[in-house]
Amino acid sequence: MTSGGDSPGMNAAIRAVARASSYYRVECLGFMRGFQGMIENDYIELNARSVRNIINLGGTILKSARSKEFLTEEGRVKAAANLKKANIDAMILIGGDGTFRGGKVFSEEHNIPVIGVPGTIDNDIFGTHYTIGYDTALNTVIDAVDKIRDTASSHNRLFFVEVMGRDAGFIALNSGIGAGAEEILIPEEDLGLDRLLNSLERSRRSGKTSSIVIVSEGDKIGKNVFELAAYVKDNLPYYDAKVTVLGHIQRGGSPTCFDRVLASRLCVKAVELALDGQQDIMVGMMNNEIKSIELVNALKSKPTINKELLRISDILSV
Amino acid sequence: MTSGGDSPGMNAAIRAVARASSYYRVECLGFMRGFQGMIENDYIELNARSVRNIINLGGTILKSARSKEFLTEEGRVKAAANLKKANIDAMILIGGDGTFRGGKVFSEEHNIPVIGVPGTIDNDIFGTHYTIGYDTALNTVIDAVDKIRDTASSHNRLFFVEVMGRDAGFIALNSGIGAGAEEILIPEEDLGLDRLLNSLERSRRSGKTSSIVIVSEGDKIGKNVFELAAYVKDNLPYYDAKVTVLGHIQRGGSPTCFDRVLASRLCVKAVELALDGQQDIMVGMMNNEIKSIELVNALKSKPTINKELLRISDILSV
Amino acid sequence: MTSGGDSPGMNAAIRAVARASSYYRVECLGFMRGFQGMIENDYIELNARSVRNIINLGGTILKSARSKEFLTEEGRVKAAANLKKANIDAMILIGGDGTFRGGKVFSEEHNIPVIGVPGTIDNDIFGTHYTIGYDTALNTVIDAVDKIRDTASSHNRLFFVEVMGRDAGFIALNSGIGAGAEEILIPEEDLGLDRLLNSLERSRRSGKTSSIVIVSEGDKIGKNVFELAAYVKDNLPYYDAKVTVLGHIQRGGSPTCFDRVLASRLCVKAVELALDGQQDIMVGMMNNEIKSIELVNALKSKPTINKELLRISDILSV
Amino acid sequence: MTSGGDSPGMNAAIRAVARASSYYRVECLGFMRGFQGMIENDYIELNARSVRNIINLGGTILKSARSKEFLTEEGRVKAAANLKKANIDAMILIGGDGTFRGGKVFSEEHNIPVIGVPGTIDNDIFGTHYTIGYDTALNTVIDAVDKIRDTASSHNRLFFVEVMGRDAGFIALNSGIGAGAEEILIPEEDLGLDRLLNSLERSRRSGKTSSIVIVSEGDKIGKNVFELAAYVKDNLPYYDAKVTVLGHIQRGGSPTCFDRVLASRLCVKAVELALDGQQDIMVGMMNNEIKSIELVNALKSKPTINKELLRISDILSV
Repeated sequence: MTSGGDSPGMNAAIRAVARASSYYRVECLGFMRGFQGMIENDYIELNARSVRNIINLGGTILKSARSKEFLTEEGRVKAAANLKKANIDAMILIGGDGTFRGGKVFSEEHNIPVIGVPGTIDNDIFGTHYTIGYDTALNTVIDAVDKIRDTASSHNRLFFVEVMGRDAGFIALNSGIGAGAEEILIPEEDLGLDRLLNSLERSRRSGKTSSIVIVSEGDKIGKNVFELAAYVKDNLPYYDAKVTVLGHIQRGGSPTCFDRVLASRLCVKAVELALDGQQDIMVGMMNNEIKSIELVNALKSKPTINKELLRISDILSV
Repeated sequence: MTSGGDSPGMNAAIRAVARASSYYRVECLGFMRGFQGMIENDYIELNARSVRNIINLGGTILKSARSKEFLTEEGRVKAAANLKKANIDAMILIGGDGTFRGGKVFSEEHNIPVIGVPGTIDNDIFGTHYTIGYDTALNTVIDAVDKIRDTASSHNRLFFVEVMGRDAGFIALNSGIGAGAEEILIPEEDLGLDRLLNSLERSRRSGKTSSIVIVSEGDKIGKNVFELAAYVKDNLPYYDAKVTVLGHIQRGGSPTCFDRVLASRLCVKAVELALDGQQDIMVGMMNNEIKSIELVNALKSKPTINKELLRISDILSV
Repeated sequence: MTSGGDSPGMNAAIRAVARASSYYRVECLGFMRGFQGMIENDYIELNARSVRNIINLGGTILKSARSKEFLTEEGRVKAAANLKKANIDAMILIGGDGTFRGGKVFSEEHNIPVIGVPGTIDNDIFGTHYTIGYDTALNTVIDAVDKIRDTASSHNRLFFVEVMGRDAGFIALNSGIGAGAEEILIPEEDLGLDRLLNSLERSRRSGKTSSIVIVSEGDKIGKNVFELAAYVKDNLPYYDAKVTVLGHIQRGGSPTCFDRVLASRLCVKAVELALDGQQDIMVGMMNNEIKSIELVNALKSKPTINKELLRISDILSV
Repeated sequence: MTSGGDSPGMNAAIRAVARASSYYRVECLGFMRGFQGMIENDYIELNARSVRNIINLGGTILKSARSKEFLTEEGRVKAAANLKKANIDAMILIGGDGTFRGGKVFSEEHNIPVIGVPGTIDNDIFGTHYTIGYDTALNTVIDAVDKIRDTASSHNRLFFVEVMGRDAGFIALNSGIGAGAEEILIPEEDLGLDRLLNSLERSRRSGKTSSIVIVSEGDKIGKNVFELAAYVKDNLPYYDAKVTVLGHIQRGGSPTCFDRVLASRLCVKAVELALDGQQDIMVGMMNNEIKSIELVNALKSKPTINKELLRISDILSV
């Protein structure tokens, strides 16, 4: 099952669950549209052949949705009844922490083992260094900024690029370094508008003809990206300020090799742990190794951004 | 010289001018930042080797700018003096109609032959079926929409994607068909908000789970893309509406094969016509052949969108 | 039905046939694996919804195959019986000239109207300036050569890149110009090995540190690309010669905007002509307009390469 | 200095060295063509502005070469004299183990501190989990295989794709999993031809219509990829076997976000360690942290492939 906001590599994950199940000769069902499909008993059988040629596709063949009904006890009772009818022994949930939270409640109420697989572009899951889809989203952002850079080099221009990450600056920070952005605004840090103006002014004086500012949609600066651009232009009038809002482009696209291999490794492990009788855990990749962690621990905290990267960004935008 | 908003393929065009000049053993200078470089006498020598490995690069190595000084007679006098000092016999101007207009005035005042090469992503130049950069911009748009489509398939979602084209719907119309958009809003047609709502409502009833609307930035519907999205969401509440603003991404990127070959053919012809003593013309591709047209005629009118494509779009979004 | 070697844009073509059929309220069946599916009565129903989200996919959802059985009269009799049973009034065949030849024989024998749609990466069909898939294949080639160019710039290196086109040099010639190749070897011209050596020697003396040679797989120089590379290295020993064979990469990939719009326009027209009772014709794009031509005429000749492009290539590799 | 086979991300590395030097207010020179440029005293000054807009470019602006003269004592004496004349206090070498070996000898002979930065697509350097360029090369391979997959799905076809890695199967193994290849042949394992035939036969019987085999150029099976394809076709005659040789495509292309961030982090650290007076070390990323290791230790051994991935590959190609 895939649930929550979709992310590139979810199909590679589905394929790995189906193939590993086939390899270990257990049956595998794919429930459609996350928890909602469980409630509506909407599923497809997944075997080794039914997942062919999907490893490279963005999105998810099982579709994803947020289910309001699953938030109610009645909804979950219906879902449990359907799973029992289908003789489900364990659930593998691919999604973010909202998904895992739902899964944990469900597992406690109905005693169905749950294994979580972190799939979200936001990289904001504790217990894994990388979530499925994050690497692809980073590359989508830098491809976009590279194109802007082509046209940026000739003008006194500021480009503001809004990227995803309502509560976490992972995408902004890493793609900002990768894209060679002059400034990176993330929700974890409120640097203030004055510092931004000073920094852009300094860039201009150091000979830069244009600057690119990556803005996390969750930035705490208190202005949306258009207001921010207008504010800067008001204060630095020799600049022409342009805005790009990437939006859902970041959730799609063919997954990178990194995300495909990550999804494959995590999901083979998830199947093996399920067969081993483990439950209420999440698989993750820590230090290049596939590990598992109690779901309760994964949900207790949030990963923090690497402050070292902020320092790197400052040095490189000199 | 490249001037106006830059477009992918301008470097391929510069390379072709330099290589053809070298082939015909004439000297070639590249003035920086359009007309401004002429005023400031800022140029580089271009020979066959100095343009190597640029055919694939977005942007323009000569940079581009809009020059206010060139709008004044004094500015143009300065520019003409510099050109004469440098023994310039003819100018090849790569840009849009603003560039050609400036070139024509200059040519009349100072008697320096001008050959225009249409380079703009907007495809809005009379006398050529394609402008350099247009094909690349179309592909940039559909790549973005393809990614959105990946994530769109699972939700009751409307995606509004704003593309360039303040006065001309070429980009929106062709990329909209290429991307399989449900609706395409262009400045040439004001279909009204009611028709849009009806059409989206009809799409939903026909079983579509999500719809993509391409909005030309110059659309005359009287609302910006965010207001438009909010309006639709207010009236079609079962939809969730998301916005992407592509912005200057569309001006950058490595040019497509089509744009590189087009730029190469147009600019070899431009050099040959200049050597042949022709002046105040623009080269263009009509019906797969390279032709020339008097600049005065190219500036007199605007190409019109192919109404047939509107019909195709309606049929295909059934 | 899609038949012969597949090409990017075939899915966009299938979608357009299905959507146009739906728009005009006629039924549409998609036969699998070309003529073989007709013989085996293997088809799927295609409606407006069943072709959603395929416009951007390479390959063909109807699959493609070469059918030996269809070359026999018995095979065709079986196919005709199946079509009659399914109440087929007209066939739309997407493929190359082998496909059209088969369709024409079949139409004559069994009196079922046939409309051909040119879909092949080779661009070798008379009656259309562009075939579906050709533009995508060109871009695939230049992307590959761009990557090679990155690494080429630092060494005394020759890179030989073999591209498709057994009988026609369209891919090699256009992608060669687009990629900025120093030499382009095509089946239409046997320039001889001496001329190649001289030209490479001249390139080196003119200051080029590396050269890229595009070789059409059908080149008549009498050596395969590895033998060619070895021969050149034997004769120009200061060069290091490397080989890339692109192979079937060229047949795949997400279609470009050009190919998607072309496929859409051709196939809407094909459906409209079929409804109009026309038969044994092929639709094509000549001078940016969709036209039709008698199949018999399309099959009578072959398009020829644009000699002007050979001249352009010589000028630009100066 | 960049040396050896070039890899995507080398420009991002050069930029980071130059920017970090500028940040810490020390001078930075870039020697051209690796050790050869040191011998010929061919260098450029690198400051914060001279490395702008290169982070996204493949190749290396400093070019790369293999220097025979540097293998001689006289060559190294010349190089040392030039470095001393230019007041070089420390060298940062971006390349593979050949580069580091040369640097170590040089450092011992002439007492100039050396810091190595691992830049190679092969990922075969001990002391770092990732080398600069490896992630990009993996994505280049899977992009190619994805295109082949588009066309593969309809035929009884075997596709053999040769990838780089003369002594190490890292590229083949990871890209093979990422591309969903049926078989992966690497130099570390000689599985024998019989096993390959059996496996392909089993794939066919399990319902696969086509199979993709990734072959490392250094595979020990004793046949080149064309011979291998011919051998398999002889023994499994219902298959049609096609070959793609990716070659130097894998060394080029715009670096991925991962490679750019890696290059940035490694090189900022390299500059800081140089300023700290350290020498004869290599920086690397182990477990997501930037570490350093004695060059002598980095050169003593080779990293080994992750056997776990071979197991994953077997499970997923079921």
